[in-house]
Amino acid sequence: MFIHNKRLQYTVRVSRPDPGVANLLLEQFGGPQGELAAACRYFTQALAEEDPGRKDMLIDIATEELSHLEVIGTIVAMLNKGAKGQLAEAMDSEAELYRNIHGAGNDSHVTQVLYGGGPAFINSAGVPWTAAYVDSIGDPSCDLRSNIAAEARAKIVYERLINLTDDPGVKEALGFLMTREISHQQSFEKALYSMSASFPPGKLPGMKEFSQVYFNTSQGEGDTRGPWNNEPTFEFRDAAPAVDGGSGLGEVTLTDDEAGVVAQLALRTASDPASDPTTGADLGRLEQDGEEQVR
Amino acid sequence: MFIHNKRLQYTVRVSRPDPGVANLLLEQFGGPQGELAAACRYFTQALAEEDPGRKDMLIDIATEELSHLEVIGTIVAMLNKGAKGQLAEAMDSEAELYRNIHGAGNDSHVTQVLYGGGPAFINSAGVPWTAAYVDSIGDPSCDLRSNIAAEARAKIVYERLINLTDDPGVKEALGFLMTREISHQQSFEKALYSMSASFPPGKLPGMKEFSQVYFNTSQGEGDTRGPWNNEPTFEFRDAAPAVDGGSGLGEVTLTDDEAGVVAQLALRTASDPASDPTTGADLGRLEQDGEEQVR
Amino acid sequence: MFIHNKRLQYTVRVSRPDPGVANLLLEQFGGPQGELAAACRYFTQALAEEDPGRKDMLIDIATEELSHLEVIGTIVAMLNKGAKGQLAEAMDSEAELYRNIHGAGNDSHVTQVLYGGGPAFINSAGVPWTAAYVDSIGDPSCDLRSNIAAEARAKIVYERLINLTDDPGVKEALGFLMTREISHQQSFEKALYSMSASFPPGKLPGMKEFSQVYFNTSQGEGDTRGPWNNEPTFEFRDAAPAVDGGSGLGEVTLTDDEAGVVAQLALRTASDPASDPTTGADLGRLEQDGEEQVR
Amino acid sequence: MFIHNKRLQYTVRVSRPDPGVANLLLEQFGGPQGELAAACRYFTQALAEEDPGRKDMLIDIATEELSHLEVIGTIVAMLNKGAKGQLAEAMDSEAELYRNIHGAGNDSHVTQVLYGGGPAFINSAGVPWTAAYVDSIGDPSCDLRSNIAAEARAKIVYERLINLTDDPGVKEALGFLMTREISHQQSFEKALYSMSASFPPGKLPGMKEFSQVYFNTSQGEGDTRGPWNNEPTFEFRDAAPAVDGGSGLGEVTLTDDEAGVVAQLALRTASDPASDPTTGADLGRLEQDGEEQVR
Amino acid sequence: MFIHNKRLQYTVRVSRPDPGVANLLLEQFGGPQGELAAACRYFTQALAEEDPGRKDMLIDIATEELSHLEVIGTIVAMLNKGAKGQLAEAMDSEAELYRNIHGAGNDSHVTQVLYGGGPAFINSAGVPWTAAYVDSIGDPSCDLRSNIAAEARAKIVYERLINLTDDPGVKEALGFLMTREISHQQSFEKALYSMSASFPPGKLPGMKEFSQVYFNTSQGEGDTRGPWNNEPTFEFRDAAPAVDGGSGLGEVTLTDDEAGVVAQLALRTASDPASDPTTGADLGRLEQDGEEQVR
Amino acid sequence: MFIHNKRLQYTVRVSRPDPGVANLLLEQFGGPQGELAAACRYFTQALAEEDPGRKDMLIDIATEELSHLEVIGTIVAMLNKGAKGQLAEAMDSEAELYRNIHGAGNDSHVTQVLYGGGPAFINSAGVPWTAAYVDSIGDPSCDLRSNIAAEARAKIVYERLINLTDDPGVKEALGFLMTREISHQQSFEKALYSMSASFPPGKLPGMKEFSQVYFNTSQGEGDTRGPWNNEPTFEFRDAAPAVDGGSGLGEVTLTDDEAGVVAQLALRTASDPASDPTTGADLGRLEQDGEEQVR
Repeated sequence: MFIHNKRLQYTVRVSRPDPGVANLLLEQFGGPQGELAAACRYFTQALAEEDPGRKDMLIDIATEELSHLEVIGTIVAMLNKGAKGQLAEAMDSEAELYRNIHGAGNDSHVTQVLYGGGPAFINSAGVPWTAAYVDSIGDPSCDLRSNIAAEARAKIVYERLINLTDDPGVKEALGFLMTREISHQQSFEKALYSMSASFPPGKLPGMKEFSQVYFNTSQGEGDTRGPWNNEPTFEFRDAAPAVDGGSGLGEVTLTDDEAGVVAQLALRTASDPASDPTTGADLGRLEQDGEEQVR
Repeated sequence: MFIHNKRLQYTVRVSRPDPGVANLLLEQFGGPQGELAAACRYFTQALAEEDPGRKDMLIDIATEELSHLEVIGTIVAMLNKGAKGQLAEAMDSEAELYRNIHGAGNDSHVTQVLYGGGPAFINSAGVPWTAAYVDSIGDPSCDLRSNIAAEARAKIVYERLINLTDDPGVKEALGFLMTREISHQQSFEKALYSMSASFPPGKLPGMKEFSQVYFNTSQGEGDTRGPWNNEPTFEFRDAAPAVDGGSGLGEVTLTDDEAGVVAQLALRTASDPASDPTTGADLGRLEQDGEEQVR
Repeated sequence: MFIHNKRLQYTVRVSRPDPGVANLLLEQFGGPQGELAAACRYFTQALAEEDPGRKDMLIDIATEELSHLEVIGTIVAMLNKGAKGQLAEAMDSEAELYRNIHGAGNDSHVTQVLYGGGPAFINSAGVPWTAAYVDSIGDPSCDLRSNIAAEARAKIVYERLINLTDDPGVKEALGFLMTREISHQQSFEKALYSMSASFPPGKLPGMKEFSQVYFNTSQGEGDTRGPWNNEPTFEFRDAAPAVDGGSGLGEVTLTDDEAGVVAQLALRTASDPASDPTTGADLGRLEQDGEEQVR
Repeated sequence: MFIHNKRLQYTVRVSRPDPGVANLLLEQFGGPQGELAAACRYFTQALAEEDPGRKDMLIDIATEELSHLEVIGTIVAMLNKGAKGQLAEAMDSEAELYRNIHGAGNDSHVTQVLYGGGPAFINSAGVPWTAAYVDSIGDPSCDLRSNIAAEARAKIVYERLINLTDDPGVKEALGFLMTREISHQQSFEKALYSMSASFPPGKLPGMKEFSQVYFNTSQGEGDTRGPWNNEPTFEFRDAAPAVDGGSGLGEVTLTDDEAGVVAQLALRTASDPASDPTTGADLGRLEQDGEEQVR
Repeated sequence: MFIHNKRLQYTVRVSRPDPGVANLLLEQFGGPQGELAAACRYFTQALAEEDPGRKDMLIDIATEELSHLEVIGTIVAMLNKGAKGQLAEAMDSEAELYRNIHGAGNDSHVTQVLYGGGPAFINSAGVPWTAAYVDSIGDPSCDLRSNIAAEARAKIVYERLINLTDDPGVKEALGFLMTREISHQQSFEKALYSMSASFPPGKLPGMKEFSQVYFNTSQGEGDTRGPWNNEPTFEFRDAAPAVDGGSGLGEVTLTDDEAGVVAQLALRTASDPASDPTTGADLGRLEQDGEEQVR
Repeated sequence: MFIHNKRLQYTVRVSRPDPGVANLLLEQFGGPQGELAAACRYFTQALAEEDPGRKDMLIDIATEELSHLEVIGTIVAMLNKGAKGQLAEAMDSEAELYRNIHGAGNDSHVTQVLYGGGPAFINSAGVPWTAAYVDSIGDPSCDLRSNIAAEARAKIVYERLINLTDDPGVKEALGFLMTREISHQQSFEKALYSMSASFPPGKLPGMKEFSQVYFNTSQGEGDTRGPWNNEPTFEFRDAAPAVDGGSGLGEVTLTDDEAGVVAQLALRTASDPASDPTTGADLGRLEQDGEEQVR
């Protein structure tokens, strides 16, 4: 069960409203690398987890991400506070209001017109958050790796945002949120490597003859060797079809009935390679006497 | 530039059509952990990469994933081959055709009715593929971690699919594809750790006082200690608000004009906590003489 | 800031695993009328709210919805517990595993194959949750009405789910969640009607001549009169174009340059109404000697 | 059956093209609170409605919303008329065309480049309309509440748009559309309260002990009392887990086989809480000699 | 302006409820090839069209598609009529209700649980309709081709649905709707070819040296010649990079500052191709003593 | 199987970075009419195609579209090259970085903040690519028409983009890509018309009495005649309901049980047309003493 404390995990002091910056910060509220995605990710994993240690860690971090969501959403709300009242109360001229949502460095019109200046679960482009951002699949060795990557990505998006604002209070709060991603990444790393075995994930072993082969499928100037395709880990091979030694074809055994109906379909929709039909494009072109270039 | 060879990377031999299995396999064709996602992921990373080694590796693996997409798509096409002709040619009774797309273990009606039995970029639920599945952000230490996780997830989804089919040709081809994910994961691992530094990602350091703290935000029976929250990596603390020592509030400095308009908005939309208004729910309830329970 | 208590708000006792029922219950976990939508809805409203009473109420209820999300997610996890292990450990034959995810009344294949038996933010069709479900717009008289409607809808979806399961523990927990929607609806009703004025929403008055008119736009047998189109609230009129008394046309004043370029565009793409061109369809038809019907 | 009259329901007189305003107006054409959503909402409800009065009202209003969709779409087309020709005919320099779609207060590049200056079913952010915006669930007491809320929201979005344009013809037509939302809201209100009982929705009563309880889940300074959590409607309680008096745990009864396989899964993926493993993050960090801060 | 007549364009006589068939028919209500897509497609084109003939045709057909939407929606409502009442009134046992929504050939659980048995703008998979299905771009020679293709696709999906039901009334109404697509396709064909020139679309001519070349990019057994790659229309060439005779590289001229910062980025994130680093995968593998295969 | 050659199909020479133009070009990378959509479209068709000629053509063109995707993605990467380094390395002040992503004609903030300056599968609005853009349905006479239309649309979007940039290298490469769409359209045209019959698509004939009728459903000034509604192809009729001569109603035969439960549902939710209930809107209005206009 969740309980809420009305104080934030980190104090938010914003120097002045700025809807343009607010719009960018939506990336970490309703964007793919943001705090809602993080909270959802760890919360669902916690619910299905069998291991008591991971389960506890996941719900701890999920809960903290909810608190971060509150921090970033509060910053967005503060940055939009002036604009919100201005549009709702319409104290200024239309032209001024219009400029307010389109001014220099301000792409906040969606926030203003559609959401009335409140934080919304969209990213800075106005795209609604989708659970398609959450890549948990219910296997701990995979999900922990996904979490490690997610924390790394969130750290970088915070870093970019910090580089884009000069409000010291906003910078500080974003810095705190960014720092916590570093800490969380380390927790997930520890959890991954404290599993008895984490690579390869799952139970089924791979085919030995292909599990450490590197296929050089892109050829030409720029081919480079490195540990990712070198001995001793990898056998380096030029790409070739049918590495199983077979025909390289796709085949299926059909019953006679199935084969018959497929043949009938093929016949009905067959093309005639020997034809040279007049086409719709020809009809469109002929009406111009073929003088396409003069148009 | 891409060139195509008409032979597959791995031969596909399907014993008999089975649209129900085909539908499940769509997870690896048009699903979030599937081959289109993989190819798109590495291809876009390759385009923007500055490091020659990583750039080469990324385009090598992207190209191979396209070949895997072709293998899995070919299996799907083979498994649907009979059903496709039957619906298009309508040689059977309606009842039989209807049963064919809804029979035991067959949730293939979307494939049949909407896509005519061809492979489509949907997952097994019929949800269209979306680039929201691709989490690349243009930082190599993040993207490589994302790739490692993606390969691990794809490995497991293949493992589940292998557990669900008994067609030996399908099992073998899926096994090859699964194996290649193991190999690719290793390449991405090597590439990550051959960077001069990969943790924490990016340039900005975190705040030292919070980068190795574990907040115990979920409390009660089940609290567990482990390397993910233990010394020496972590300082373990109970969660508390305002860890910065401030007020824990969100504050913004408004101009007088801004403050005025916000006050006006607040006044206009104020609630009266001392009232006890009759409500719409009361109106709906009263018409029944309050006898909600007899309904 | 949020804190989590490891005990649920309501105890969950599930009699036996049942992935088919679990799949239906996803409607209230990751579906449009479910608990994630509810929590997100009230949480974002709380962040931007100026009125202290509503702000408190919104965060209270948002927090409770998170606890409900945990309850419904826990039920889903319990119902999937058997299936999850079976697919991951693959102790049964492929045929049996396949039946397990497609058996009578079981459309859980997405949960099993893609999410490994864990709860996911999808609905029972497998459609990922999207913030497009959240209709908050940052005006309290609107958002409270949206909340009232959302609680009513959630109540009904719980009622349908209760009608579909006979597990007494599941029924009881769902009954609790359903009951809380009734209570929340009443809170939002009280909050709406304790505003000084809630209708019409906003500041701008409507045009008096059209704000209480009912246009009878659908005509014929079945036309019905009732309080929704009767005096004294409504003036009943048959629909007619150009109710403003104007031309009913759309017009725009263009500069000469603009008009010139539009005219040029119109000329370049003009159709010739006096022609009777041969078309692509004709080409396709002619090759059959016009015997369309014999096919 | 629908019939179309070539005159609009309300005359549209636009003073001059303005693609930037056109882009904002897309909110009410293809946005979540716009006219397509309204028409779709009432149309589907009408199709399934059993009550003759509501059925008539729903199709009346659905039809009028289609006429509103035509009005707003016509305004958008007029506002884009100049820009459309300019890009298609390319009479200006590239730089001028580029400025035209990015000028002050103009975020219309999607409309221009992708849709050729025509109205499209996107919102002002370019997000395609989705039926996820339509929240009808097939219960009249819910759907009428949803409709009331939807009309209120549409009224406010029109109000915001009116505040953002100074073209008198556009303001007037938007004012008409806004006014009709006020009228429609009243019709839906009348229809809701003319049901014999509308609260609580549905047939199943709630649990009496929880249907009028307010849980104070958010605690601290800012806690406020009001009619939404006061006697006599509500019993006010501090939030607590396991309000049923049980354990607050999630439990499921497994068969021996199920329990066995879950235990095996748990064992295979167990973490070792007593370990302190070296992690991938450590590997990345060590290569820098631990001097993270100097980077 | 739209007016509605309460009689359908075509009478709908359904023999018996069948939610499974209803679910399939949703493809033509809320699916990508369905009537909502058709109506939206032609309606938006009509709004922006300059040519009076096409404008009239487009709004005529858009209006008829709305009437078709009503016909198909009515069939869906009739087919669901029994199930709708049963779930809402819950007169049967839970087990029977559960079977009703999962019975043989019935994948209607989304319709029943989420939409209460009413038609919804989803396809047969439960995926909400999206305007991403509408491909109009505001150029008549393109949009007419898109319309021709859309009518052809809709015709085929109706054909498949007709093949899947044996209810004569449903077959007849679907047959009417299918027939109208044939008629509409012919209208769009006539409109396309009555333009003065329709190929190539637009104003800019192509590069002559590449506008009639066929590149053989897929090589090997199966290479086929036909009118699509034959003389006289096409020059047949094997694919080759850099067909412009250049380097085939991507190049950009940077300022010194830009080049400097890119170099710094490259250096900071460089990989070391000469290393052979221990990786996270190695850590996970080592804990098993390398005995991956025994797992 | 695919092989990659490190040289592009066409050399890309970009004069200077320009993130604003890069953002527009994303339309042809990750937008609905772009190269990913094209490649996916033809690739899936090829996999399921039975006709050897079409199968070869489809995979040839699919492969070339992948090479085009690489060309357009490379242009985008070049145009973003400066900005990418500047944000990652943060060598400039925050204000300057902020201006860089919001400057005149630059709506690239999503690319910069979320994707780090790399090409991403979004369009110029930031909307993620979705397979909902791909309209293939597995019938060759439909899919070829869809392909023809898709090539026409892509040609026009390239034309618009060419009109918006003055960088000669970018113009030239876009010109090549545009030209190839012209060539591909011709191949698909040839393939369509070399089928033995392509109209109407499929096997089922239409109803003769309705397959060449034009219904005049939009009436009033502006009605126009042309080949799309003229003899001899079309019979021109005014729209009328129930063209089958029936009642124009939707009917279904219910069992007694079904009818009973529907009647009960209707009764429980009936509206009372003779009432004039006080409503929620009335409650909100009354509190203002009806003085709506003074607000």
